[in-house]
Amino acid sequence: MHRVRVDFLQESITLTAREARHLRVLRLTPGDIVRVFDGHGQEAQASLVRLDDELAELRLGALVDAAPETPQPVTLAVALLKGDKLTDVVRASTELGVSRIQLLSTRFADVPEIGNAKLQRLDRVAQEAAKQSRRAVVPVVLRPIPLSALPETTQGFVAHPGSTSRLTALLDWSVGPTLVSGPEGGFSEQEIALLRSRGYHAVTLGQRILRAETAPLALLGAIAATGV
Amino acid sequence: MHRVRVDFLQESITLTAREARHLRVLRLTPGDIVRVFDGHGQEAQASLVRLDDELAELRLGALVDAAPETPQPVTLAVALLKGDKLTDVVRASTELGVSRIQLLSTRFADVPEIGNAKLQRLDRVAQEAAKQSRRAVVPVVLRPIPLSALPETTQGFVAHPGSTSRLTALLDWSVGPTLVSGPEGGFSEQEIALLRSRGYHAVTLGQRILRAETAPLALLGAIAATGV
Repeated sequence: MHRVRVDFLQESITLTAREARHLRVLRLTPGDIVRVFDGHGQEAQASLVRLDDELAELRLGALVDAAPETPQPVTLAVALLKGDKLTDVVRASTELGVSRIQLLSTRFADVPEIGNAKLQRLDRVAQEAAKQSRRAVVPVVLRPIPLSALPETTQGFVAHPGSTSRLTALLDWSVGPTLVSGPEGGFSEQEIALLRSRGYHAVTLGQRILRAETAPLALLGAIAATGV
Repeated sequence: MHRVRVDFLQESITLTAREARHLRVLRLTPGDIVRVFDGHGQEAQASLVRLDDELAELRLGALVDAAPETPQPVTLAVALLKGDKLTDVVRASTELGVSRIQLLSTRFADVPEIGNAKLQRLDRVAQEAAKQSRRAVVPVVLRPIPLSALPETTQGFVAHPGSTSRLTALLDWSVGPTLVSGPEGGFSEQEIALLRSRGYHAVTLGQRILRAETAPLALLGAIAATGV
């Protein structure tokens, strides 16, 4: 079943030329049923009433259950990474159930900043990954802030080599967790101290060194494997 | 510290022209210290005694501790995947501590077979990832077998949507676990039944649909996050 992201679930929905083209590629015709979701948790059936070169029009049907979300929203705070690594992290962490991705600039960051085009690409990747993993929530990707601007947390975890605490043993769903993951060069000792002072627990990801793009997926995989 | 894979740890070690070139690129000179590891768990210091266009010669020093391995070897049995997806899975699962990667051909496999060049590339990727993650064990990548040839297991797990059992709750390190992960189209019901009959437990990876290349990393991440 094809899934289309829309701004609002309303009686009559007009799609962009780009989405209309996509429906034509899929050889859909008036009367066919698709799913529409608003990116904020609501999803419904919709029937195609008109499809031409420039336009697709849908009529809203019944609400449906999308893939369940985690009991509380999960935030991933991740350092800026080089090349396509952030794209990979956004895609896989969306599948793994993250709701917010907060980009971080850090002392040993691989790159100092990120352009608007790249940020827009990350949004598109999150949207595409939400579709594929049948989520009705599209994670928001937030512009980078310095690590020092990360607020205090009541439930935060940072992957840090040498730690022995276990994420899943500490995790408590009464509040949404924030997972912090560093750049290729890791966090500085000062950064770890700052995170601890703001309530973040340092947790283990095993005895081996992980690349910066693997660590967030291991953290999120550990949560997903608890069945939420 | 540069790490070099060698066949055996012996008093005098001669490297290939390719490795010698790499040492020159790193601007190493006679007297410099590197690490050598045999891919089967042993690692030592070695000093460079000669380096020219065609040859590098090392003299063995003291044994050193490499990154600790899991309490028992972990096997990943993974379906053949398209394009570079297998490369990504081999790289990240090596970081996450896997010891054997058994390729599988399955009913809904994305591709029916894999060429020798691709297999050799997967070996190189495993070797490179072992170096980067400071492991002294290089996972072996085993040529594909049909799923039906997977032997009975006393400790096997298969990621399967709809399951509620938790991998880490069932995991018992008295024997090395085998993790089974399917192709993009998933396993057929017959394949799941076959795996169950051979002792594999179906386990959850959360409520969302994961891509075939994300699922094995979530399984291995869940294990790594226990601290092994």
